[in-house]
Amino acid sequence: MSPSPAATDSTFLRAARGEEVDHTPVWYMRQAGRSLPEYLKVREGIAMLDSCMDPELIVEITMQPVRRYGVDAAIFFSDIVLPVKAVGVDLDIKPGIGPVVAEPVRTLADVHRIPDLTPEHVTYITQAVQGLTAELGATPLIGFAGAPFTVASYLVEGGPSKEHARTKAMMHAAPEVWDALMKKITQISTAFLKVQVDAGASAVQLFDSWAGALTPRDYAEKVMPYSSQVLAEAGTWGVPRTHFGVGTTNLLTLMGEAGADVVGVDWRTPLTRGIELVGDRAVQGNLDPTLVFAPTEVMLERAAAVIEEGRAAKGHIFNLGHGVIPSTNPDQLKKLTEFVQSYPLR
Amino acid sequence: MSPSPAATDSTFLRAARGEEVDHTPVWYMRQAGRSLPEYLKVREGIAMLDSCMDPELIVEITMQPVRRYGVDAAIFFSDIVLPVKAVGVDLDIKPGIGPVVAEPVRTLADVHRIPDLTPEHVTYITQAVQGLTAELGATPLIGFAGAPFTVASYLVEGGPSKEHARTKAMMHAAPEVWDALMKKITQISTAFLKVQVDAGASAVQLFDSWAGALTPRDYAEKVMPYSSQVLAEAGTWGVPRTHFGVGTTNLLTLMGEAGADVVGVDWRTPLTRGIELVGDRAVQGNLDPTLVFAPTEVMLERAAAVIEEGRAAKGHIFNLGHGVIPSTNPDQLKKLTEFVQSYPLR
Repeated sequence: MSPSPAATDSTFLRAARGEEVDHTPVWYMRQAGRSLPEYLKVREGIAMLDSCMDPELIVEITMQPVRRYGVDAAIFFSDIVLPVKAVGVDLDIKPGIGPVVAEPVRTLADVHRIPDLTPEHVTYITQAVQGLTAELGATPLIGFAGAPFTVASYLVEGGPSKEHARTKAMMHAAPEVWDALMKKITQISTAFLKVQVDAGASAVQLFDSWAGALTPRDYAEKVMPYSSQVLAEAGTWGVPRTHFGVGTTNLLTLMGEAGADVVGVDWRTPLTRGIELVGDRAVQGNLDPTLVFAPTEVMLERAAAVIEEGRAAKGHIFNLGHGVIPSTNPDQLKKLTEFVQSYPLR
Repeated sequence: MSPSPAATDSTFLRAARGEEVDHTPVWYMRQAGRSLPEYLKVREGIAMLDSCMDPELIVEITMQPVRRYGVDAAIFFSDIVLPVKAVGVDLDIKPGIGPVVAEPVRTLADVHRIPDLTPEHVTYITQAVQGLTAELGATPLIGFAGAPFTVASYLVEGGPSKEHARTKAMMHAAPEVWDALMKKITQISTAFLKVQVDAGASAVQLFDSWAGALTPRDYAEKVMPYSSQVLAEAGTWGVPRTHFGVGTTNLLTLMGEAGADVVGVDWRTPLTRGIELVGDRAVQGNLDPTLVFAPTEVMLERAAAVIEEGRAAKGHIFNLGHGVIPSTNPDQLKKLTEFVQSYPLR
């Protein structure tokens, strides 16, 4: 059915394509999840990865913020490590820690033991996306995948890492293992996105959350070629591609050139600077996610500044500069959404 | 005795002042500490903050990397939270966690309960610096203090934080508490540096480790005025001032303008770009600290690139782009030091 025709003319997709819009579209990274009481309720007693494999629960959790906030796009509820779990890598998401991999990937043999991903590994994803696109109607669904570097970091380190020291060590000391691992994840991430688009997702976002830990040189030489391959393949499906990472000021130009239609800008980079760096592409972002804890008028004044800066871009999708912080009060995001959607166009 | 006359013509200080040098000077942030077996040995059974209050131990730990590597400068062994501990704030450094504050600072009354720092609070610092400058001879000692924002984050959050959400919330929601707290830490950090310079330290470095979490606007409005005050005061003591933070690409110009003679550049920002951003100041950095885990020839090839880039600066002090990672093999740093010090000048 790919991609959902009902959403084609939505404000989100128009902005992503750089077309004229009737308002600045808005959604939030991690809008579905721990900040919502209705999410905590449906997740009670259900492990994170189990919830990502249950089509009904995926639909419900993905829909919750759309219902509550009336955002301009839904983001598919999943996790960066779900696809590698789906092909059989022994890992779990531990509350308060994050993904923990039973046997970290260190050798060529370790890489070769990881199977390619086929649609049969993730039939619940197909079902969930089909259910969602039916329920969402004209609201577009953004498909979700982790970029090869970020997924590789979890697999190599065995869990979340501040330094990514083993990952970078593999990059430099065992380039053939690194290449094999990055190719493997490239296949898995691409196939995971394709399943979502084939089932009706209208756009994709590639999350390279930890890319900002890299120098531009290492990014260009050791990471970008693989992300480019995912994005190039996604480019053949007729959906806009967003590319996002945190702390990426020095990588934004490359992340655009990797083949993105929309480049996500975190809050550290002034949006005006981000727009200069990505050139003739749309941008997404970039309110500091902690501003929800400021008084509402301060938050909205800063949001207005972001919208004004966004005018200079080919297209602008409003978002936070990183995911919604779990302790966020949903009422603030409701006010923020209304503010952005009703902010007068020039 | 301030500052040590023996060190005045050292390569480190010449580079910091932008004068001609016979080689690129080099030292490493966290060169004294967990990566050294001799450090782990002397620290056995002694809590972190206790070791920072024992003049003999401070001298020994500060000297260890100078002896082992022959670096061009010693960095005073201490901790960012030591000065607030010294004035009586109830906090501890928990292994594997970091500083934990018993009663986080949230109100004006909380701020007013924190005393100003006087030299009498830290007589062990004076003794340690005097012992060190005698032992170091012509090798300069860099005095150490945390910048107001970074120290404030520990006090407000009650410990290490990824988001600094409560800290930023205070900044926006309770500006009068924020101002009082920042003024208090400004006094404490300034006095702590002055004790070190009065006792013989030849330079100072202000560590604003977490400043990179801020937008340039919040940095300029809510943080920079206080750091500027510390640096302005330090400027009257006749010692070069280095200003460092992580993830600060968008703040480097401001961090220079805050009153630094040397701006520390982390590894994410290409040094060439960092030099453009800081203008007519010296720079310090910026090898990715994980490159010590790469094969030696890869590490040295990258170090050569950093040295070459550094030529364009008013002055260049070689360093890692962040602190030495505890699992670093000291033999790699020994090779790196020799390589940098013998690298031919053009």
